[in-house]
This record gives sequence, structure tokens and C-alpha cells, in this order.
Amino acid sequence: MAHLTDQEIASKASIQPIQEIAEKAGIPEDALEMYGKYKAKVDINQLEGNKEDSKIVLVSAMNPTPAGEGKSTVTVGLSDAFNKIGKKVMVALREPSLGPVMGVKGGATGGGHAQVLPMEEINLHFNGDLHAITAANNALSAFIDNHIHQGNALNVDPRRVTWKRVIDMNDRALRQVVVGLGGPTRGVPREDGFDITVASEIMAVLCLSNDIIDLKEKLAKIVFGYTYDKKPVTVGELEVEGALALLLKEAIKPNLVQTMEGTPALIHGGPFANIAHGCNSIIATNTARQLADIVVTECGFGSDLGGEKFMDIKARMGGFKPDAIVLVATIRALKMNGGVAKADLGEANVDALKEGVVNLGKHIENARKFGVEPVIALNDFVTDTDEERNFVLGWCKEQGVRVALTQVWEKGGEGGVDLANEVLAAVEAGNDFHHLYEDELPIADKIEKIVTEVYGGDGVILTDKAKKQIADIEANGWGNFPVCMAKTQYSLSDDPKKLGRPTGFNVTVREVIAKAGAGFVVALTGDIMTMPGLPKVPSAVKMDVNADGSSTGLF
Amino acid sequence: MAHLTDQEIASKASIQPIQEIAEKAGIPEDALEMYGKYKAKVDINQLEGNKEDSKIVLVSAMNPTPAGEGKSTVTVGLSDAFNKIGKKVMVALREPSLGPVMGVKGGATGGGHAQVLPMEEINLHFNGDLHAITAANNALSAFIDNHIHQGNALNVDPRRVTWKRVIDMNDRALRQVVVGLGGPTRGVPREDGFDITVASEIMAVLCLSNDIIDLKEKLAKIVFGYTYDKKPVTVGELEVEGALALLLKEAIKPNLVQTMEGTPALIHGGPFANIAHGCNSIIATNTARQLADIVVTECGFGSDLGGEKFMDIKARMGGFKPDAIVLVATIRALKMNGGVAKADLGEANVDALKEGVVNLGKHIENARKFGVEPVIALNDFVTDTDEERNFVLGWCKEQGVRVALTQVWEKGGEGGVDLANEVLAAVEAGNDFHHLYEDELPIADKIEKIVTEVYGGDGVILTDKAKKQIADIEANGWGNFPVCMAKTQYSLSDDPKKLGRPTGFNVTVREVIAKAGAGFVVALTGDIMTMPGLPKVPSAVKMDVNADGSSTGLF
Repeated sequence: MAHLTDQEIASKASIQPIQEIAEKAGIPEDALEMYGKYKAKVDINQLEGNKEDSKIVLVSAMNPTPAGEGKSTVTVGLSDAFNKIGKKVMVALREPSLGPVMGVKGGATGGGHAQVLPMEEINLHFNGDLHAITAANNALSAFIDNHIHQGNALNVDPRRVTWKRVIDMNDRALRQVVVGLGGPTRGVPREDGFDITVASEIMAVLCLSNDIIDLKEKLAKIVFGYTYDKKPVTVGELEVEGALALLLKEAIKPNLVQTMEGTPALIHGGPFANIAHGCNSIIATNTARQLADIVVTECGFGSDLGGEKFMDIKARMGGFKPDAIVLVATIRALKMNGGVAKADLGEANVDALKEGVVNLGKHIENARKFGVEPVIALNDFVTDTDEERNFVLGWCKEQGVRVALTQVWEKGGEGGVDLANEVLAAVEAGNDFHHLYEDELPIADKIEKIVTEVYGGDGVILTDKAKKQIADIEANGWGNFPVCMAKTQYSLSDDPKKLGRPTGFNVTVREVIAKAGAGFVVALTGDIMTMPGLPKVPSAVKMDVNADGSSTGLF
Repeated sequence: MAHLTDQEIASKASIQPIQEIAEKAGIPEDALEMYGKYKAKVDINQLEGNKEDSKIVLVSAMNPTPAGEGKSTVTVGLSDAFNKIGKKVMVALREPSLGPVMGVKGGATGGGHAQVLPMEEINLHFNGDLHAITAANNALSAFIDNHIHQGNALNVDPRRVTWKRVIDMNDRALRQVVVGLGGPTRGVPREDGFDITVASEIMAVLCLSNDIIDLKEKLAKIVFGYTYDKKPVTVGELEVEGALALLLKEAIKPNLVQTMEGTPALIHGGPFANIAHGCNSIIATNTARQLADIVVTECGFGSDLGGEKFMDIKARMGGFKPDAIVLVATIRALKMNGGVAKADLGEANVDALKEGVVNLGKHIENARKFGVEPVIALNDFVTDTDEERNFVLGWCKEQGVRVALTQVWEKGGEGGVDLANEVLAAVEAGNDFHHLYEDELPIADKIEKIVTEVYGGDGVILTDKAKKQIADIEANGWGNFPVCMAKTQYSLSDDPKKLGRPTGFNVTVREVIAKAGAGFVVALTGDIMTMPGLPKVPSAVKMDVNADGSSTGLF
């Protein structure tokens, strides 16, 4: 087994027809819209069941290494473990973006024996959702440029169109472009840029909507730019929210697939976790709640990013709460946070662990800030030594925090049973969940609270631009929106080099942008990119497809 | 019925589960990959059957009015008529592009009682094919710009990258852009532009491939630009043909749907007919041949455009021939070709008909140039008078050409039975099909032959640029490619204002571009646009979606 890739392991796994998974999940035949033999969309209007008694298990993490800590793998494996011990469980994950798939090795479908299937189709085009979002985003861009070209009745200032085009690809050459060149038949020239699709506000809107009417209403509220006298202009004023919602009418339906052990999985929505809110859709989470007693779901990166956003944005808008929080930690990431270079992470180093474990300590503290006692999942790697494992397990016990060693990559659900039992105990114990801040807190104070309480910083430095933007946002009536922080995932601070548990730092917010459709305010720190680039040798170069349609080199 | 839209008629039609249509078509369950309840993809590796005994009926047309002559409607209605008289028939159509759907009223799914279903899903995102082509096209763009950015080992001249990005939207502001702005982390600045997806060479490649291995080989041959010393650079040299083929592995499978009368329909591939070859895929046509005794298929615009390209490009590469050619004519289009203004086409005018019928005469002659006796389908409109109908029917008889009045919009298959019987007689009579030119004819002579014999022109004027391009093309070993003419659909000439049967004209070819992947050479005449624009009020403004996912305003 040692040398099999994730794709090879997945290709050897047995996969059940999706109708059988649907039946197991309690999805009636009328609600099932098949996409091939192993994928389906679920028509939520055809479902019955009460979601209030279901428990939500949120999987978050410490600050990761560049390779990630196997959060998706643990999320999948934990759901398989619940399945194994006889619980009615569903796992709710985010959808992968094609850009990273083509660019750098690493999918979003878990790994080893804790994967969702069919991994190829999930990693490529998955039921067309991201393409539909791309199409809706770019249709809006075309409508905007056409409006300006055709007389500009809304008085839109071409220099103040904030709506960018998107593409589901890592393409740095599109970060900054000029469109409309070539004379009067080719539109009005202006500066523009492309983001990756998962950074589109439409992705966030889709993920935060409760149904298609809610989606349409949120789309209508999107501000795409400003007039010459600096008034916001909305999609509703262009009268295209119906067309955009129509383009999204299939994408809004959650996608049903399965884990390698046959646990029903909903994979739906995938906003960036560093610049957007980084959680799967509210619709998928609620669908899973209707169907299962336990819903295992993840959020992007650590408790400082996706975790905080799950609790302050998604849970707030979805009207639910996490019944337990799992924090995935690895010995490699703990050593990296203790100062070990990437190349040396495979070597035993208990001293570095002792240094780096403060990072995990802060994430534990963060869960407690929201009134929830976390459970630590120590995700086992082949290079870990017993001495290292014992140190971490012992340290957790000293902190009075539940912990379990998980070996789901190697053993599937069996390797997560200890974790599942700890999580059940945590759920049983109950919690005192609360948001970090109330809607009414001013924007600057919300940012301050996140930075000081969750990141452990001293305070916030707002640039003059950010101050002015906050004033405008509050004047426009968006002051009660939650804040979506755009920050590096590698550090609790805004500096990716500050590892461990940094203290004595300020976070600089260079821009604050309202996403009036999604209903949150983005605060940009550091150099967060909304369009990644490809590496020198993209992973695409290794990919191939055979005469029978099977593929190689995907992961 | 008078005031129902096509969408309303479609929504009242009964639709069968796609499994039933597949069973009727002889597609085994294993070969069927469902996309919802009413659409499927067909895995051609699972099919049996001999395609050699099947008959191909090609539906072409005279030069159209801007509203079109109902060619798709007649194609669908004719297949329903064959179905009605007990023939084992399939219809093979092109896929719609989202751009025109969002821009100008008019889908590609037929109309009235001769439509394919489900029309909404076919007009929006249809099984993801165009999105996959967009993704593959733009992945290649990203790989190219990344290659240049990361050291440019292939010595690609950024000024000579001929590969453009694409988007499936009417978006004039993207016709001419500059990418790579913003400094060294944002790529190498260069001029670029976006075409509409249906103009992508990848669309042509997909439509002209026989299977996925053929597709991959054709992708590898695509020339995306030239080196500083003007040597062509291919996708194969970038080593990404495997990744691009992988992105297309589902899109290459033909899509099964149904007509309103339950005739099995394959809708697959949709290259532009004015700048590309304008026919559905060879794979879909061959799949239909394997399954049915009669395959009804259309090609874009008139016999001068899609018709000529079907016979000289698609039939040549697919290794088949048309057993009958139907030419769709309308009294409105004949009157327009007789000089009547668009606003007056609803008024009876036999004198204008007499003037305009020469246009149809030339299209009849064109079919005969390929050795095939055509059948005229006079597609009935509510404004037509008996006197007008009788004139056209009588004129056709004088020409010794088969003709039938068709009323498929109003009556479905029943309204096409006369046409079906005429077509059967034509098939029975056999033909002497041959291409217009042989592979070995030099490029300039191929163009000359198309212009003089099919368009009725005196000759060809090649610009100096075109002459040099032809010399380069022949030097690169592409001289034996067929020619794909890019020309206005409104006239037999290159001037859209020259209606009827123009004579005494020359056609100016301003550029000649090799599409080494698709395996043809495009000769550009006139002002053919590869990216349409939106009208002042896009049809998107009328569209809406309801809580149950149903929609309005689509057509």
C-alpha cells in the first residue's frame, strides 16, 4: 500500500450506485437527480424531516503546513467512524476548484482510505456548480459593460466598477487587465481583473442562501460599482437577478456522493477560506441536518480563519450552532510552529514540539471563546514517533482537553473510532455556544475583537483608506454585517512568518469592502491574493486520460 | 395556441424518463449516464451496432432572414415525421451557446410543436459540455502565460501567441484586452482577446474527433503561437494534451434527450457556423448511425456555409456522406432575397417572391455540385398566403426538384410527413456524392473553387497578408487541410447586403489561419466577429426563476 497514490487507492475502492446511498440517507427517489451513476443532485423541495435534533460536528484545525494537515481526510474518516459505530451520519464538504487541481498536487476529497468518491469527477467540473457560478459572475460583468456601452442610464463610473470577472483556473496573467480596447465597437475601456471563481461574491451568496428565492434576493443586493457621484449601484437596478438566479438553479442543489466506506456525503459550495468565508453551503448543511443525526462538516484552514467565520458568519446566517468542534493537529505542523524547517519535518524532534504546541493551545482557547470545548484529532503521519505522539497526547490531557489519535488515512473509519467516541462525549456534555460579537457592534470594533481575542494580537491598524471605507459602509447601512477577515492561513497574525503563538503584534487592515449580496464585510490584511498562479511545472503535465475514459496523474 | 411562447408550449408537453427514450433507441443501460431525469450522456464504448447501413439526412437552408428560417424546427419536425411513419430515426443537433441565450431571443432547440426537451436545461449549461470546453481552452491560455512567465523555455514570442481565451457569453468588452499588467508577479503583459466558446478550436477539435485518443492527438497538434524565430509551437510541446483531454472526457460523450414526440435526439457539439465548421459532432452522428436507420442532422446557416462545410470537412473527416439534403426555405426569406424590407415581410408579395427565388435556385445548384439532388422544405409561416405557397411549390416543380410544404411548428411530426416521404424517395433514388475538391488541391485553389462554384462569384482577392499566410501554411505542411470559410450568412457573397443570387463579385480573403488541431484552414472574409455583443436590452432582463425551480422568460 505504501506507494499507492490517493487516485490509485480510490480506483481500487468499491463504489455503490448512488441510488443505494440515497436510500441509506433517506432521500426519496423523487428528490434524486442523477449525474452519472455515482453522483446526484438533491431537490430539497422533495425532502421531509426535522433538522432541529441533528448535531453538527465542525472540523477545524491548527495553523497548517503548506501541505495541509489532512482536515478533509479527518472529516471524511470521522464520518466513516460514526457510520461504523452505527450512527446515522452525513458528511458535508466543500467543492474543489479546478485551478488548484491543475496547478498544485492536492485535491479536496480527502486522502488514503478516507476519501469521497468518485474522486476524479468531484475534482473535475463536479456537477457543473463552479461553472454555473463562473457563468453567472461573468454574465453580470457582460451586463455591466454592456450597460455602460449602451448609454449608461444608471450613470455607472467605469473607474468604479468593483465587480471583477472570474475564471476557475490559476491564471496570474489575468490578475490585472484592461478590457474594452479597440475602439467604439468594443466597449468602454477600463481597468479590470479576474479572480478565481471561489473568490466570487456569487459563490458566497450561493453558500449563504437558504433557498432559490433567498438567493435571488441576495443577488439583487450585490453592489457592482458606484456612480459618478459615488452612490452604490446594484444588480437589482440592472434587473438581471432573475437571469443570474436562473443560471444558478441547478448549482444551488446540493450534490450527493459517498465516502469510500459508503457514508453519504454532501459536497456543495466552496468559497475561499482566506478571503471569503470558507464553508460549504448552508443548504447542504441543513439538508444533512434534515437527513442525519450527526453532520460532520469542515471549514477552511484554522480556527482563526474558517472556524471563526463558520461561527460568526455561517452559523449566524444559517441559524444553527456547532455541537462539537474538532481541531485537527499534526506533529509535523506542531514542529513547524516550533521553528523546524519544512525539509526537516520528517525528523523526530520533541523539543520543537514543546515549542510549537502553543499554536494548538491558542486554537483550543479560540474554541472556548465561542463557548465550545474542542476535541483534538492528532492526525497520524508515518514519520511520527511514539515519543512525539505521547508528548502531544499528554500535553492535551494536561490542558484538560479531549484528544484522540486518528489513523483514518491508513485505516479509514476504523482509525477514527476513538475520535468519534470523544466527539460523542463532547456532544453529550453540551456547550454554551455564542457568537464572538453582536450584529450591532461597529465594524471597526468587530475587527478589533477578532484580532485581539481570536488572533491574540494587541490591536488593529486601519489605513486611512480602510477608515474611509468603513465610514462609507456604515453610511450605506451595512454596519451590522459580520466581518469576513482575509488573512494568511499560516499564522495567527497577518504575517505568515510569525509561527507558534505570536504576541505583541498589530494587524494592519488595508481595505474594507462590503459584499452587500453575501451580507458581510471583507477586511483585507497582508498580501492575500484573489487569483493564484501556476507553479513552474503545473500538475497538469502529469495528467492523462485513456481510451476507456479512465485517468492517471490526478493526485 | 396563438399566443403561447415556445417555452410555454414546451412546459405543457409530456416528457418521458430518459431511460425509456434510451430503450427505444437501443442504448443499453450500462451505456447510459443520467444527468437528472430527462438528460443523459452515452458511453459509446458500451454500444453495439453497425453504422454502415444507416442513412444520413442533412438539413441545410437558403440564405436566412435575421430571425432564421426554422432549420432546427424542421430538423426536429422531420425526425418526428419519420418516427410517426414507423422509421427507426434519431435526430442529431448542435448545442446552444449561453451567449445568445442571454443576449437575443432565440434558442437552438427548435420551436412550436417541433422542439427538443427539456428545453430549459438544453439552453442552460447542457450537461456541462461548453463549460468543459471553456475550461480546457482557458487552462491552455493559463499554461501558455505561465510558461512565458516561468522562463519561456520554448522561446514563445508573447506578441505571436495566437491562442485566445474564451467565454460562453456575448461580451464585446473582452474582444480586445491587455493581460499580464501590474508588475512582475502578474505575468508578462501582452495583447489578448476573448472569443465566444463556440469559436474555440477546442470546440472544432471535439466535434471532429472520433474518440478520446483521437481528441488527445488532435489537441497535441494545436498551434498556440510562434517562437521569436517564427516557428509554430504546439500543445504537445507544452505537454498538456493529456490534461486538456482529461478536462474533456465527459464532454466528448454525446448527450441524449428527446423531441416533444419522444424521438431520441443526440445534441452534441456546436461550433460557430460562420467562422468554424458549424456541425454537431462526428461522434454523435456516428452514434446515431449505429443506433438508427435514419439520422436527421443539421448544419449551420445555408448550403454556402454549414452545408459546404458538412460536405467538405465533417463528412470528409467522419468518412460518411449525406444520403439526402433538405433545403429549408421560407416565403419570408424568399421575399427578403427579392428586396422586401424586414418590416414588410408579413405582407403578401408574389412579385418579390419571383425575384427572390433565385437564391433558393443557387442553393439547389449547390447541392447538385456535390452530386446530391436536394429536397425543398417550404416551412410554413402564419403570414404566408396560398398564392405565395403555390408559386413556390410550382417553381420547384419547374426546376424538377422535390418539394413539400411543412407545418411542423404548428403540427409537430404530422406536419412533416409529406417532407419525410419526399426525403425517403430521394434516399431511395441514391446519389453521386463527392467532395468539392481533393485534399491535394493548393489552399488558394480550394478557396477559389468554393467561391466560384458554391458562392457564384467571379474569383478571390487575397490580401498580401493572406498570401503570405498561405505560403507559411503550405511550408508548415498543412496545405492538404480542407478550408473552413468565415463568411456572412446573409448573402452568398461576402457582402451581407447582396441578396438574391449575386453575380459579378469577388470575395476578399483578408486572413488565412491554420487550425492544426482541428485540421482545417480558416479563410476570413468580411467583418466576421468571433465575439458577439449584447443588445441594449438583453433577453436576460425578462428571465426569472420561481421557488420550485421553474423558470419564465427563457424564450
